[in-house]
Amino acid sequence: MSGNTFGKLFTVTTFGESHGPALGAIVDGCPPGLPLSEADLQHDLDRRRPGSSRHTTQRKEPDQVRILSGVFEGKTTGTSIGLLIENTDQRSNDYSKIKEQFRPAHADYTYHHKYGHRDYRGGGRSSARETAMRVAAGAIAKKYLAAQGVQIRGYMSQLGPIKIDFKQWESVGQNAFFCPDPERVAELEAYMDQLRRDQDSVGAEITVIAEGVPVGLGEPVFDRLDADLAHGLMSINAVKGVEIGAGFGCVAQRGSEHRDEMTPEGFLSNHAGGVLGGISSGQPIVARLALKPTSSITTPGRSIDIHGQAVEVITKGRHDPCVGIRATPIAEAMMAITLLDHWLRHRGQNGEVSVDTPRLTQR
Amino acid sequence: MSGNTFGKLFTVTTFGESHGPALGAIVDGCPPGLPLSEADLQHDLDRRRPGSSRHTTQRKEPDQVRILSGVFEGKTTGTSIGLLIENTDQRSNDYSKIKEQFRPAHADYTYHHKYGHRDYRGGGRSSARETAMRVAAGAIAKKYLAAQGVQIRGYMSQLGPIKIDFKQWESVGQNAFFCPDPERVAELEAYMDQLRRDQDSVGAEITVIAEGVPVGLGEPVFDRLDADLAHGLMSINAVKGVEIGAGFGCVAQRGSEHRDEMTPEGFLSNHAGGVLGGISSGQPIVARLALKPTSSITTPGRSIDIHGQAVEVITKGRHDPCVGIRATPIAEAMMAITLLDHWLRHRGQNGEVSVDTPRLTQR
Amino acid sequence: MSGNTFGKLFTVTTFGESHGPALGAIVDGCPPGLPLSEADLQHDLDRRRPGSSRHTTQRKEPDQVRILSGVFEGKTTGTSIGLLIENTDQRSNDYSKIKEQFRPAHADYTYHHKYGHRDYRGGGRSSARETAMRVAAGAIAKKYLAAQGVQIRGYMSQLGPIKIDFKQWESVGQNAFFCPDPERVAELEAYMDQLRRDQDSVGAEITVIAEGVPVGLGEPVFDRLDADLAHGLMSINAVKGVEIGAGFGCVAQRGSEHRDEMTPEGFLSNHAGGVLGGISSGQPIVARLALKPTSSITTPGRSIDIHGQAVEVITKGRHDPCVGIRATPIAEAMMAITLLDHWLRHRGQNGEVSVDTPRLTQR
Amino acid sequence: MSGNTFGKLFTVTTFGESHGPALGAIVDGCPPGLPLSEADLQHDLDRRRPGSSRHTTQRKEPDQVRILSGVFEGKTTGTSIGLLIENTDQRSNDYSKIKEQFRPAHADYTYHHKYGHRDYRGGGRSSARETAMRVAAGAIAKKYLAAQGVQIRGYMSQLGPIKIDFKQWESVGQNAFFCPDPERVAELEAYMDQLRRDQDSVGAEITVIAEGVPVGLGEPVFDRLDADLAHGLMSINAVKGVEIGAGFGCVAQRGSEHRDEMTPEGFLSNHAGGVLGGISSGQPIVARLALKPTSSITTPGRSIDIHGQAVEVITKGRHDPCVGIRATPIAEAMMAITLLDHWLRHRGQNGEVSVDTPRLTQR
Repeated sequence: MSGNTFGKLFTVTTFGESHGPALGAIVDGCPPGLPLSEADLQHDLDRRRPGSSRHTTQRKEPDQVRILSGVFEGKTTGTSIGLLIENTDQRSNDYSKIKEQFRPAHADYTYHHKYGHRDYRGGGRSSARETAMRVAAGAIAKKYLAAQGVQIRGYMSQLGPIKIDFKQWESVGQNAFFCPDPERVAELEAYMDQLRRDQDSVGAEITVIAEGVPVGLGEPVFDRLDADLAHGLMSINAVKGVEIGAGFGCVAQRGSEHRDEMTPEGFLSNHAGGVLGGISSGQPIVARLALKPTSSITTPGRSIDIHGQAVEVITKGRHDPCVGIRATPIAEAMMAITLLDHWLRHRGQNGEVSVDTPRLTQR
Repeated sequence: MSGNTFGKLFTVTTFGESHGPALGAIVDGCPPGLPLSEADLQHDLDRRRPGSSRHTTQRKEPDQVRILSGVFEGKTTGTSIGLLIENTDQRSNDYSKIKEQFRPAHADYTYHHKYGHRDYRGGGRSSARETAMRVAAGAIAKKYLAAQGVQIRGYMSQLGPIKIDFKQWESVGQNAFFCPDPERVAELEAYMDQLRRDQDSVGAEITVIAEGVPVGLGEPVFDRLDADLAHGLMSINAVKGVEIGAGFGCVAQRGSEHRDEMTPEGFLSNHAGGVLGGISSGQPIVARLALKPTSSITTPGRSIDIHGQAVEVITKGRHDPCVGIRATPIAEAMMAITLLDHWLRHRGQNGEVSVDTPRLTQR
Repeated sequence: MSGNTFGKLFTVTTFGESHGPALGAIVDGCPPGLPLSEADLQHDLDRRRPGSSRHTTQRKEPDQVRILSGVFEGKTTGTSIGLLIENTDQRSNDYSKIKEQFRPAHADYTYHHKYGHRDYRGGGRSSARETAMRVAAGAIAKKYLAAQGVQIRGYMSQLGPIKIDFKQWESVGQNAFFCPDPERVAELEAYMDQLRRDQDSVGAEITVIAEGVPVGLGEPVFDRLDADLAHGLMSINAVKGVEIGAGFGCVAQRGSEHRDEMTPEGFLSNHAGGVLGGISSGQPIVARLALKPTSSITTPGRSIDIHGQAVEVITKGRHDPCVGIRATPIAEAMMAITLLDHWLRHRGQNGEVSVDTPRLTQR
Repeated sequence: MSGNTFGKLFTVTTFGESHGPALGAIVDGCPPGLPLSEADLQHDLDRRRPGSSRHTTQRKEPDQVRILSGVFEGKTTGTSIGLLIENTDQRSNDYSKIKEQFRPAHADYTYHHKYGHRDYRGGGRSSARETAMRVAAGAIAKKYLAAQGVQIRGYMSQLGPIKIDFKQWESVGQNAFFCPDPERVAELEAYMDQLRRDQDSVGAEITVIAEGVPVGLGEPVFDRLDADLAHGLMSINAVKGVEIGAGFGCVAQRGSEHRDEMTPEGFLSNHAGGVLGGISSGQPIVARLALKPTSSITTPGRSIDIHGQAVEVITKGRHDPCVGIRATPIAEAMMAITLLDHWLRHRGQNGEVSVDTPRLTQR
């Protein structure tokens, strides 16, 4: 368990470096009998894929996934599922500089000191390229959950200083930003174009929502559903904050305002974000995550080299000016993996998950 | 692993209900040879103890901890450490109402549906009383880390609408709020007094900081140090959000601002909160957590009973009007446990943690 | 996970030294709604208890277990179950010798070098006293499994050179040896009496059988049911060998003999011991374990002290001349814990365990 | 954790079916800086490879392994290591019979009932082909341990009724049986030839020995070194029994005989097999495992089909008449993985493994 596995019963273990030959994952614990094909995984991989708009890295990766085991005649067998994506566009750049210099706010410095020896090409293991396997594995979880009536969707709720109110799910798939308001897309485009001219990057906030989750998922006291969600979401590259429901907004709330009152017809609000005492309440599970601006910018920055000498660093190469733009499918994947893991854990201890419990969703 | 264990190498497993005979924990994986006595644990337990000011629950619990194993002649032996605290003030109230009614925003509703059968007295396992054992176990981790030069401290950074800037550590231990600014204490007192008159509760924000952490702790990609911190902190009762470093503030930041530049003398800022690529950078680790207002208020609220009928609920009993007030030692404990776990995990894979690596802390 | 936890979904974590104040365990993952009282645990504890015949150690321990959490109004709640047994007869012997000398074939030598600092009184953590908590936890698993029709029973199948054929279950509870043949008990008594006169000890073999196990328990490839059974049984003090079904006897078997042929009415044999491909077949699960002779004998032996000097060691105190005599309940407990863990793991991934699958037990 | 992962800190997770496109593994937790190439893994893979003599299956698999991550410029980086072997000789046989019939003593019956849907071609996941990835992963562990002075070697100690005394390590690599006595090889050849004429199969016993293991590896009480070894070895296909040291022979031993006395110059015997109280003693670790005769024989056997009807089964195809013949490298691999995992676990809790502790190996 040295850090490359997520989950307890439904587990995802990954490998792969940015510029190595391939990325891979082993998904263990998937229930048998689930119809599954590579196309099921490819859909989300394509949503995350680099190079699909001018606002993301221009690296061209088809991210074509192969299922190498665990599926037979179109259905899962319950045995471990091997996944593989070959890297095809790992350019042989000149890495002589990056090899000896620490880019500010990158993992270069910490990997160097932790491991002594590291693959510095393109960030190696610390590259966000690793998240492709999360998306592939998450697609399996999504498919299982969808068959149980659980739908997991995300959108961009803030780009830099621009807050985006939710309008409609239809919009999310129709622009490069996962923006839920079609009328704001032009503004985002303009902002990104200016940012590129400024040779800078910016942060973003993603909101992920799971609807149709039955009452009862989550294991107190340490493996609360929200705690494991926080673990999964915070483990995504560049994430610096996670909120459930009202999140940091609850600090200034009073109890009489925050508490979600219940009536026989349903909850009257959802400040809890669908989790009470660490257990799903049947309301939509709402999480938000903050992604920092990538540090790979061409504006020079002060840094040091491996000998401790001062250097000026300019990060060239193909980089996302806002890593948050492609983060929505990754966040959905981590939520799906977490929910399926807890679904199976609940079923293990308590028996079949009751999808018939009357769910008091918000009126 | 049904949820009552935290950690991989340094593990804490707990049991105990609010109104049961005792709370307990087993701490496994503590390095041998650490000087340890019950007094070491009692200090933090006393900081968290209820009933020590008029702003917290009036339940009187000495929270006297006993070490039942794993310590011999004043030093840890490397075997599992058994801890026990007997409950002494679990009043035999009339629970006939709470037994059949769901208090809004409590775990009543979700425990009922998850388990079918629950100890409803005082919230049972979902009570914050459980956190006493986190504090006891955390004190062990703190003591080990302190001997390595790591200091973990927290303070209240916001009470309801009142933001509190950090002034001095000395102040934190001198008031009931863990307030780091002695000049603001009177304001907090007044706010709480008014809140009690309003029969309401309020949220709070706690900041926890670890200083002296060496470079290199954290296991990419899923068990990043910040991801495990998020897991640990979000698992504390009432927490709805966790931030590392700039947290949600990074959304509106540009890369040129967020990136912490380095010079031979040190980092020029700490927006990263001491974690880069999931690995500690040697800078102070800074985390913030948002605690919701407790829902145990005497203002009537709409709810339902176990038969689905509408009821009006008033939560009487002895409750904290702001659970955040006593949360600082708990947050410190979870950070200490997480750091020690990662210390041992790092040492396992990589060999001795280098405390000699030049740490570029913030100038 | 530093070694004091067993199981993945149904987990048992223990603490306690031979001469410390108490032994304890936390049982996590027990399904809710199981009727459970201390009397349910006491039965097996009494079967294992020392001092109940002249053939076991004369230490007098009531081994009275308390349930401190996880049970409410007579039924489990699904939360963690705290168990505690206070040590009452830990005599304050003179340990000055044992402190500095390594008893041959004891854990003294290895604990000393592993941990540097150890509780040497009565063997500390390495004492078989620790197994009391296994028996208490196992009784919970047994009770759950019994309600599903699974019965777990063991007996002594060999005492030193004396092989004992199975005759009847009734006999097992009627003598101090767990001997399944009432006509052999006198022989065992005589053997033990002579052994004591010889100031020596002897090994034993225990057979444990689980009947009524449904088809399907066990997780290939590493967590096969038989592999986890081997783990659990080999972890019992003094065990040096574990067999499933034909065990080492299968080495000399031919495939035509070993393979258990099937007919519509049932299997024609059970050389597999109820496990095929790591998964329960519905036949009785049969395991055997070999326990070494205790090394705590009063015949002098050559050894060294902590300074590496030669010493002559005589182990006085209250010891079992055959630790195998009290091992049957412990072996049953480990089998029960393993089976329940796999029951829950199966249910987690695959849904409810089918107890209706036609079981082709041996004709 | 659904069964396809082994280890706690040094973990091996595998996937792959007999007739799928590929086998794979992710090795996590390998210390950084270890020189490693595919050639290091290929050596043991070739020792295990099918088709290398007339006494094993005639399936032709080059078992060419690729390292896809975790190694950079010839050294491990500390990140997860992806391994892949493509299946090349999975013939498209006619599986219409095997699809509906349960071969006696195979996993067909249990997989069918556990999962409902299974890859029946060549045994699917239950095929011993899976063990190739154990060998590849084990080679990594072996290489690390070898650099620390630990040598792990195995040999066949019994083939069917033929017991083989150990003579010399040189012989083991010079015959198809891993036979340690060159003078017995002809006898084994003749036995196997007769067995093939008999259309039958036979069991075998393998002995594995680790020399140079420092004092102190193993985590009491459940994760004793011998318990984890038993887990690992029993998880190998066809294994029905595991012994440490004297094993079942200790049942008839007396304490005065079994206890390994110590002198300043060393232990006087090694009945314990190098493990005391679950912790390595510095003596050679000795384990034996019993492998059953494969059930894939061409002698007709009685069985049933998936409808419960009686059928006569003849298992054609390419099978090993004695799976034990190729089992030695697999057993070595599981011992190496277990030892390295415990090495890292020890180092995590206790600090650097002391290889300087005077080892009292057997005189």
